[in-house]
Amino acid sequence: MSPTDLPLRSAESTLAEINDAIERLIVARSTRVASYGSEFAELWSLSAKCLRGGKLLRPRLLIGAFDALSETTKPGEGMRSEALKIAAALEVLHFAFLLHDDLIDEDLFRRGEPNLIGHLASLPARSQTPDTDRFGAATRRLHWARSSALLVGDLMLTIAHQEFARARVIETGRIRMLDLLDETVTETVAGEHYDVGLADGRILPELHAVLNMTRMKTAAYTFELPLRVAAVLAGADKKLEEQLGEVGSHLGIAFQLQDDLLSAFGLSEVHGKDQFSDFRERKETALMAFARNTKVWPQIDHHLSSTDLSEESGRVIQRLLSECGARAFIESMIQDQIRSTLEKLSQRDGGALAPVSRFVQALVDSIDGRNV
Amino acid sequence: MSPTDLPLRSAESTLAEINDAIERLIVARSTRVASYGSEFAELWSLSAKCLRGGKLLRPRLLIGAFDALSETTKPGEGMRSEALKIAAALEVLHFAFLLHDDLIDEDLFRRGEPNLIGHLASLPARSQTPDTDRFGAATRRLHWARSSALLVGDLMLTIAHQEFARARVIETGRIRMLDLLDETVTETVAGEHYDVGLADGRILPELHAVLNMTRMKTAAYTFELPLRVAAVLAGADKKLEEQLGEVGSHLGIAFQLQDDLLSAFGLSEVHGKDQFSDFRERKETALMAFARNTKVWPQIDHHLSSTDLSEESGRVIQRLLSECGARAFIESMIQDQIRSTLEKLSQRDGGALAPVSRFVQALVDSIDGRNV
Repeated sequence: MSPTDLPLRSAESTLAEINDAIERLIVARSTRVASYGSEFAELWSLSAKCLRGGKLLRPRLLIGAFDALSETTKPGEGMRSEALKIAAALEVLHFAFLLHDDLIDEDLFRRGEPNLIGHLASLPARSQTPDTDRFGAATRRLHWARSSALLVGDLMLTIAHQEFARARVIETGRIRMLDLLDETVTETVAGEHYDVGLADGRILPELHAVLNMTRMKTAAYTFELPLRVAAVLAGADKKLEEQLGEVGSHLGIAFQLQDDLLSAFGLSEVHGKDQFSDFRERKETALMAFARNTKVWPQIDHHLSSTDLSEESGRVIQRLLSECGARAFIESMIQDQIRSTLEKLSQRDGGALAPVSRFVQALVDSIDGRNV
Repeated sequence: MSPTDLPLRSAESTLAEINDAIERLIVARSTRVASYGSEFAELWSLSAKCLRGGKLLRPRLLIGAFDALSETTKPGEGMRSEALKIAAALEVLHFAFLLHDDLIDEDLFRRGEPNLIGHLASLPARSQTPDTDRFGAATRRLHWARSSALLVGDLMLTIAHQEFARARVIETGRIRMLDLLDETVTETVAGEHYDVGLADGRILPELHAVLNMTRMKTAAYTFELPLRVAAVLAGADKKLEEQLGEVGSHLGIAFQLQDDLLSAFGLSEVHGKDQFSDFRERKETALMAFARNTKVWPQIDHHLSSTDLSEESGRVIQRLLSECGARAFIESMIQDQIRSTLEKLSQRDGGALAPVSRFVQALVDSIDGRNV
């Protein structure tokens, strides 16, 4: 295959390859899972359905970066299929984090659709024993649903580790990938814990704290890990891996900030969430952290505290967030992160990095293009 | 070292070695964890304290079997220190399962002592923000404690996988150990899910179902995994690994049944649990599953359903469980499991297996010796 073939791999064909890799991973376990009884087989099948429904951001980042790097590093035959396996493992890891995050947030929905817990809790009751125990029927069903999601999360986390542990790459690469996974899971867990601290009032929701949480909880596993792992799989040197890690960190924060803006100001048809759901849940975003230190905060706080936050209150909060400069500040932060990203890339000399730069530029454009 | 040295390794010195291995594992992560902020460092430190407090059944099984097997298989230098690392990883895996099990059961105590959730929930509140949010102070503290335990469980599961993935053994051994860990975690997760099904009334608590749950949820990771992994690390052949796996399965069920008997009939000073706590929680044990099909069940059910189950009700339930034959039946089941264990071992010819037989015999004696 000539190098010029690589940019021609269409986004659609890459998506199909990633979906195939996820499917293989599901099929490989289905028989064994079925041997543990029908209840568990049913749970697995429903979980697999949820796993299939993702937008595949992390796998696409990994494969996109891997393909771009491969133009110059020319990894050996078979490395791309290893990369696809690891890309699938990243989607599984993401699913594990989502499940446990939804448990912590007591959510039954994600982006307007029932999540696994919501699906399980709404399944017709099939109790075999009369309902004489400590729980009422609805409470029992929710307990069943939440416990199931906890366990599926454990299983998904296991699968992600197993796939990394079995990667067929040279020993130093395999150990490096294990290091990256280990560090990233620890950082994500710490970030999630930090987020709980913000939600439960143990950590003051100041701007630096919210940004710190965002970097640890989301940017690390969503951007840094796929880009760094792509570098290892493609056989890039350690310095390039580190540069891509920093690029990932900046991009990850920019993406999350853009997501916060979309949730606050975007149309629900575009961002897929309930309109004003971040306001309703009093989500501690960087936007809110900025606004908290302005003189309009008492008004915002008043509207946030109203029960069943009305459409009108939502609009007032939007207006206040613009007036106090929070929106403009976050928009400028996104531009700062993007600038840092591009600076990181320009530090590396010339041609060797050109395909990766093009790939990152496309990512940056997609952030800029997510208009609110 | 001559083979005759091995049986001389005292239980105390092995325990000290295992504790050292666990300590090294904790220390290796403490610096990195501290970089994620004081709240997380505090959580890690409290978790490490809980991790240190175990009875180390699984690591002791692994090292005991490894030492016994080593008398004949004579593994290479350094394998014993790998075995100690994996033994520590088994304790970490056990801790992960306990944490998530306690979340599912909504327990704040384990064997009379506060578990990690109980510890965290009872820490002095250190909210930095006024308590104006959706949760009240106590509810928020419990949410914080439960979320933290969920996340620590994820981290512990990660550590266990990482240790297995990095074991310095020959490649076929490493892959075999990963297979065993993967299968065992999946089986344990399925067993825990089965247990939730029993508790939430989705699966009928018949004897075969309860025994199935016990085998999957407890015997697999507590007995089968340590014995099989010991075989792989010691370089034993596949057939011996499988025989030890079956031995582990029988021993695991015998241990769990003995534990059920101890909880139902033993003195709390001996078994370390609250007297009658299994009755209070209406735990679905094999003992109860047998009793459910006898004519005294309505009486037992009546006493189990009383709120704040009294000492007197506890005594009546004990008497009824004896009278209906449930106790004798479970005692005979334990003997059956032990007989099957010893038969498994005698199928293997002669001298090669003698040290392992002695080790298993000692385990069997310790089950017999756990008098109620």
